[in-house]
Amino acid sequence: MWTATPFLDVYTQISSLPLGYNHPAMVAAVSDPRNVATFVNRPAMGVLPPADLVSRLKNALLSVAPEGLSEVQTMACGSCSNENAYKAVFIRHVAKHRDGKPPTAEELRTCKYNVPPGSPRLSLLSFDGAFHGRTFGALSTTHSKAIHKLDVPSFDWPIAHFPEYKYPLEEFESENRKEDEKSLAHVEELFHEYAKKGVPVAGLVVEPIQAEGGDRHASDDFFRKLYALASKNDVLFICDEVQTGCGPTGKFWAHQHWGLDTAPDVVTFSKKMLTGGYFYKSHVRPKESYRIFNTWVGDPTKLLLIEEVLKVVNNEKLLDNVRDTGEYMQKGLKEISKRYPSMFFNVRGRGTFCAVDLPTEQDRNKFIAEMHRKGVHCGGCGDRSFRIRPALTFQRKHVDILLDRAEKVLSEKF
Amino acid sequence: MWTATPFLDVYTQISSLPLGYNHPAMVAAVSDPRNVATFVNRPAMGVLPPADLVSRLKNALLSVAPEGLSEVQTMACGSCSNENAYKAVFIRHVAKHRDGKPPTAEELRTCKYNVPPGSPRLSLLSFDGAFHGRTFGALSTTHSKAIHKLDVPSFDWPIAHFPEYKYPLEEFESENRKEDEKSLAHVEELFHEYAKKGVPVAGLVVEPIQAEGGDRHASDDFFRKLYALASKNDVLFICDEVQTGCGPTGKFWAHQHWGLDTAPDVVTFSKKMLTGGYFYKSHVRPKESYRIFNTWVGDPTKLLLIEEVLKVVNNEKLLDNVRDTGEYMQKGLKEISKRYPSMFFNVRGRGTFCAVDLPTEQDRNKFIAEMHRKGVHCGGCGDRSFRIRPALTFQRKHVDILLDRAEKVLSEKF
Repeated sequence: MWTATPFLDVYTQISSLPLGYNHPAMVAAVSDPRNVATFVNRPAMGVLPPADLVSRLKNALLSVAPEGLSEVQTMACGSCSNENAYKAVFIRHVAKHRDGKPPTAEELRTCKYNVPPGSPRLSLLSFDGAFHGRTFGALSTTHSKAIHKLDVPSFDWPIAHFPEYKYPLEEFESENRKEDEKSLAHVEELFHEYAKKGVPVAGLVVEPIQAEGGDRHASDDFFRKLYALASKNDVLFICDEVQTGCGPTGKFWAHQHWGLDTAPDVVTFSKKMLTGGYFYKSHVRPKESYRIFNTWVGDPTKLLLIEEVLKVVNNEKLLDNVRDTGEYMQKGLKEISKRYPSMFFNVRGRGTFCAVDLPTEQDRNKFIAEMHRKGVHCGGCGDRSFRIRPALTFQRKHVDILLDRAEKVLSEKF
Repeated sequence: MWTATPFLDVYTQISSLPLGYNHPAMVAAVSDPRNVATFVNRPAMGVLPPADLVSRLKNALLSVAPEGLSEVQTMACGSCSNENAYKAVFIRHVAKHRDGKPPTAEELRTCKYNVPPGSPRLSLLSFDGAFHGRTFGALSTTHSKAIHKLDVPSFDWPIAHFPEYKYPLEEFESENRKEDEKSLAHVEELFHEYAKKGVPVAGLVVEPIQAEGGDRHASDDFFRKLYALASKNDVLFICDEVQTGCGPTGKFWAHQHWGLDTAPDVVTFSKKMLTGGYFYKSHVRPKESYRIFNTWVGDPTKLLLIEEVLKVVNNEKLLDNVRDTGEYMQKGLKEISKRYPSMFFNVRGRGTFCAVDLPTEQDRNKFIAEMHRKGVHCGGCGDRSFRIRPALTFQRKHVDILLDRAEKVLSEKF
C-alpha cells in the first residue's frame, strides 16, 4: 500500500540531477526575464554562436576543465559526446600518420562510399562490462547487458578484460593486483592482435567506475598503468566521466583521484553536467572545420543552468559535503553489511557514488521495490547491485534516513 | 563595410526555427511561472516520465503524426533520431526472422562481444548524396561531402544511385524518368547483392529532398515506386524528415506529397520540431523494454515549446502561408533566372523549401557573402547551391526583399 512518507531520492533521474529538485539558483536563472531569449531562440552554435558563448564557456565548463585539458566541445547527450570523441580520436590518428600531407584523392573519393582508405580500418578498445551509450559507435564499446546490444550490427572492435575485484579490498590486495595485471596484459595483447589483423587501435575508452555495469571499481594504480600503456602504444586515452563527473566521487572528476602526471587525452561528460560534451588536449582538435559538427552542437540553455550549478558547487563547498557525506554513508553501509553479511555485501564507493551487492538479481529487485515502498527512490546496476546516486547536496541527515530504511527492509527478511 | 540594413534571415539556424525569433507564443510559454519546474528539473523520461507526458505527447507530437503512424519516440537530436530508428528497424528484422522464438543463448552471449549471431550482419541502404547525421551509424548512411566522413571507420552498407534531374523539370520529363528507373534498378540490385554476400538489407533511409546534399529532388512517382520495391523485399522504409518536416514544403510532412497508400514505416524528425524523435508503425516497436532507451530520451522543455509552435501553425494557418509564399517566391526566382540564366539557374523547390544553382562553388560562396552584406542571412548546400530556408511565418513582403537583394547582387556582377 502507498504510504505518505516523504520521498528521499538516491537515484536522481539516473544520476543526472546535480542539486536535486527546484534548487533556488536554478529557479532564479529560469525565471530571470533576461534569459527568456536564450530559451526561446535555440541557435546553431557551430555557425552562429550566441554573442555570450565564449564568456559562458569560460564561466561554466572551462572553469572546471581538468588540469591539462584546455579545450571543450559541447554536445547534446552522453552518447553523442562519446561518438564525437571517438571521431576526433580517429581523425587525429590518421592526421598523425598522414604526417602533414593532405588527404589523397583516393581517400576523399572512397570515404563517401564507406570503404578504405577514406573510411579507414581502425578500432577503439573498450572493456568488458563497460557502458558508453547506445548509438552505433558508442554501442560498439558498450558490453554491460545483452538487451542493450542484441540484434544491432556492431563494429568489430577489441574488448579487454576489466579487473574483477573481491571485497573488502583490504583483504584481497594481492588477488586484486593480479586482476589488474591480467587486464593490462590483455589490453597489450589486443593492441598487437588488432594491429596484426590490419585494424590498429587508435584509442581506448574507459569509465573510472563501471557504473551501469555494476559499479565495478579498479585501482588508481591500474589506471596509471593503463594510461602509460596507451601512451607507449600511441593509443589515445578517453575517460568517460558521463556518470562519475561533476563531483559525486568527492573530486570534480573521478580521474583526478588517479594521480596521473598528465590528464587523459579526452574526458567526456553529460548527466549532472546538464549538457553533454568533452574536454580534450589541443592535439585532438581537427585542423579542418565542420569535422566535429552538427546543427545544434549542444544547447545554450543547458550552459546557462550548469553555470548556476557550478556557482552553487563552489559557494556551498559541495565537494567537501560529498566527501563528508560519502565517508559517513560508506561507514554506515559497512555496519549494516556486518549485520546482514549474506544479504548485503561488497560495499564499495568513492564519495557518495556507492553500491552494495545482494545475492541475486531477484533479491536486488525486491530490495529496491521494498525501499520504494518505504519512501526511498533508488535503482540498480549490473546483475545484482543496488546503486546509490544522490545529488551533491545529500547530507548526513539524509544518509540516516537511507540507512534506516535499508536496515528495516533487510530486517523484514523481504 | 557593415551597413545598418535590418537583417532578413532565410537560413534560420540551419533550418531549425519554425517561427523565427522571439515569437510571442514561445516567449509566453517560457515566461509562464507554471513552466519553471519543467525547465529546472529535467527527468529521465524513459523511467520517470513527468505526470503530463502523455497529454503533452497527444497535444503536441501526436497531433501532427503522419496518417498511419500511431506511435512516437522522442530523442534529443536528428542524428540520435536516425540512429535509434535504424536500431528499431534492425531489431524488428531479427524479431521477424526469429518468428516468435526467444533469442538463443549464443545470440545473448555473442552480442556483448560485437560478433554474430548476436550482433548480426545486416545493413541499411542509403543514397548517394544523402545526409542523415554524423554519429557512426548515421554517418554510414551520409554521403554528401567527404569532409564529414574522412578518416572515420564506417559500416559497409549499400549506397544506391539517387536520381540526378535536369531543370526545368517540364522540359526534361523523359530524361528524369530514366534517372528514376536507373536509381530503382540500382536499389533492387543492391538488395540482391547484399543478401547474396550475407549482409541482408533490413531497411532503407531516404530524404524527401536531399537537403545538405544540394536540394536534390526526386519525383513523387519515384518515391511511390521505391516504397513498393522496399515492401516487396521486406525492407522497412525510413523517411528522414529532419529538414523537410514541420511544414516548409507546404504540407506538414514532405512525404505527404507523394500520395502513398500507406505511410513510410518510420518518419524521423528534429530541427523545426525543436525535439528530435520518430513516428513509427506499431510493428516497429520492440517487444522488450530498454532496447530503445537512454538517460533523457528527449527533453520535456522542447515538447512544451513545440506544443506552442503547433498551436500557432494551426491558428495562423501557416501551411497555407507557406504554400502561397512558396509559389510567389519560386515564380520570382524563375524570373530572375530568366534574366541571369548563366549565373542563377536550376530554380527548384516545394513550398518555401527552395534552392538555386550558381556556376561554381566559388560563385555560390561569393553570392552568399554579398547577400550577407546586403542584409540577407542565407546559406548554401551541395557543391554550388544557394539554399533558402525561411521560417513558416515568411511572407510575400519578405520574398520581395530577398528577390530585390538577389537581383542587386547579380546585377553588380559580383
